[in-house]
Amino acid sequence: MPTPFDFSVTRVDGAARAGVLTTPHGVVETPAFMPVGTRGAVKALTGRDLDDLAVQILLANTYHLFLRPGDELIARAGGLHAFMAWDRPILTDSGGYQIFSLATLGQVTEEGVRFRSHLDGAEHLLTPELAADIQLRLGSDIAMVLDELAAAGVPAADQRAAMERTLRWAHRGRERFLVVRDAGARHGVTVSNPGQAQFGIVQGGIERGLREASVAGTLAVGFEGYAIGGLSVGEPVPVMYDVVGYTAPLLPADRPRYLMGAGMPDDLVECVARGVDLFDCVLPTRNARNGWLFTRRGRLAIKNARYAEDWGPPDPECGCYTCRHVSRAYLRHLFLAGEMTAATLNTLHNLYFYLDTMRRVREAIVFGTFEKFRHEFRQTFSRQSPP
Amino acid sequence: MPTPFDFSVTRVDGAARAGVLTTPHGVVETPAFMPVGTRGAVKALTGRDLDDLAVQILLANTYHLFLRPGDELIARAGGLHAFMAWDRPILTDSGGYQIFSLATLGQVTEEGVRFRSHLDGAEHLLTPELAADIQLRLGSDIAMVLDELAAAGVPAADQRAAMERTLRWAHRGRERFLVVRDAGARHGVTVSNPGQAQFGIVQGGIERGLREASVAGTLAVGFEGYAIGGLSVGEPVPVMYDVVGYTAPLLPADRPRYLMGAGMPDDLVECVARGVDLFDCVLPTRNARNGWLFTRRGRLAIKNARYAEDWGPPDPECGCYTCRHVSRAYLRHLFLAGEMTAATLNTLHNLYFYLDTMRRVREAIVFGTFEKFRHEFRQTFSRQSPP
Repeated sequence: MPTPFDFSVTRVDGAARAGVLTTPHGVVETPAFMPVGTRGAVKALTGRDLDDLAVQILLANTYHLFLRPGDELIARAGGLHAFMAWDRPILTDSGGYQIFSLATLGQVTEEGVRFRSHLDGAEHLLTPELAADIQLRLGSDIAMVLDELAAAGVPAADQRAAMERTLRWAHRGRERFLVVRDAGARHGVTVSNPGQAQFGIVQGGIERGLREASVAGTLAVGFEGYAIGGLSVGEPVPVMYDVVGYTAPLLPADRPRYLMGAGMPDDLVECVARGVDLFDCVLPTRNARNGWLFTRRGRLAIKNARYAEDWGPPDPECGCYTCRHVSRAYLRHLFLAGEMTAATLNTLHNLYFYLDTMRRVREAIVFGTFEKFRHEFRQTFSRQSPP
Repeated sequence: MPTPFDFSVTRVDGAARAGVLTTPHGVVETPAFMPVGTRGAVKALTGRDLDDLAVQILLANTYHLFLRPGDELIARAGGLHAFMAWDRPILTDSGGYQIFSLATLGQVTEEGVRFRSHLDGAEHLLTPELAADIQLRLGSDIAMVLDELAAAGVPAADQRAAMERTLRWAHRGRERFLVVRDAGARHGVTVSNPGQAQFGIVQGGIERGLREASVAGTLAVGFEGYAIGGLSVGEPVPVMYDVVGYTAPLLPADRPRYLMGAGMPDDLVECVARGVDLFDCVLPTRNARNGWLFTRRGRLAIKNARYAEDWGPPDPECGCYTCRHVSRAYLRHLFLAGEMTAATLNTLHNLYFYLDTMRRVREAIVFGTFEKFRHEFRQTFSRQSPP
């Protein structure tokens, strides 16, 4: 018997929650940030780096792994944990987001999404059922149901249609998930992780009525946890905060809440304040590769000439490997020289910053000082360059 | 007072030697392989990776560091050790090799080599004196004197002329080195490592007479150690072994011998058998980035379809991080996906293989079983794919 999926809120401070998520591959203390391991690896890092960073849970992309090396191959490897030699929790997305952002075609019908692979142009049809099957083969600890992401700024009618289709897909995806998880062999699916949980996704753009309808419909299907999707897609930051602010409280208090694809460090703090437990975002890793380093005071562009002879660490208050060992001047040199080591050192730093921010958030919630923390964070952290 | 440079041979087994090299930044047990940290970093690795690999000594490239970030900047950082946060020994080359292989122009006159930077086309003149100054600013533990590398296959007269110019440059480079090391301020040079040693370089192509003359002339100048240069530049392997075989014994028994730029794992074993103590080569790191993995039985191309579902480690006999954690199938996937993590994992493996080979070589010498080791190595290691 696999460890049953479980979630319990251990402390609340205002709307902010500290909790413990239990999965077949161990526990996750929430609020938690999930680094993105797109194709079975966090870019520029090895598993040992993730160990050293004390990463609790990773996100991996179903779309990428489905196309290469393939979910069937990963199932034969014993699942994604065995394949990538990572024995702690993994969440996989449904694949939908990448179809809309990377693949071509992206033809949505009631059946599913027809798309062409960005790798070889091959045509595929991703249905809610297939999205469930692929993730059951991957064997992540948390699978996401397939949703339809309406493009930002589409008319309200299209936004509503996408939200309603997402609900119909949620029914289909949930049904398939439950049937196959418990009897995969009968359906030709190798179930790599019989303890897998599945989260539903609330859509509805930035219309409160649509979000409310989406929550109601998604809860009616019933999942182990709930995500807020369709944000961080270009809407103004206050609008995102607003949507999260009225959506999160509608979700069950005893289930984990996951805000998909957000965000900047202050977004995480602000959305924890609105009741979110889980986050993922490519920002810390992608910014690292592009030479942007997060610090408590702001985000610095390491290529800037002002750092050419700056012998101090990226962030004097940071305890990461990079800050304990190397200078801004050295990182600038490696970045300008195009050394891969720059990507590794910057990624170690940025992920540490995100994970450490979440640890401090959690500690503040546990000590009942979250509002003070939030205020101070807002005072010191800037999206611009530090002074 | 810095630790004085020292070398002592502790055991001999035939012509093979086990020794201890003492530098201002610690000791190196020889025979030793020096990973290449071209621009102040071993490609795809961090300092912690080098710690874990138990790397004893690194090589860094004077040409690259001179152009970017510049030797003056590195001197202001406190030297290369401080700049790259590496506190164990470093050897720097003279810059000559890269001028001939990367830069354009490469006009040799008696004064030095005039070249254009491969980065921005700026014209520079590298003289034996400047090569010494740059390396004194970098503060490596071992500096190399500037030599002229004759292109492979040039007429014997040109080969002789290059060898003789190398000797005249050796005089100039040595004189400058000794004067500036002990009174840098008077010459406008920040001496980052007052305990730096300098090695001479024997040239002469594949002509025994030229090599003998080069040895005699270089010994007459007198250095802390001696390198054999101008090999691994395209000549047949048996010819390289032959040149090393008659050149190494002409060098003083109590000084370290360094074969520059070699080679494949079996080259290292064969050249230890001929009396060489130090090696450097980009093969393990460059091969790693290109998806070639060294194993005790041969070199495998990880992209090969035969590894698509090979769940075993790259080398079942290897104790490196990569082999202890991931499969050939996973490495193949990462490599085909173009993930930087593939370069890191492959580099960790290949460097471990080289370093471990040298540890086994040394142990065999100490136990007086080197010939047996060499024989077995030749029997099992193949430059082709393993069976």
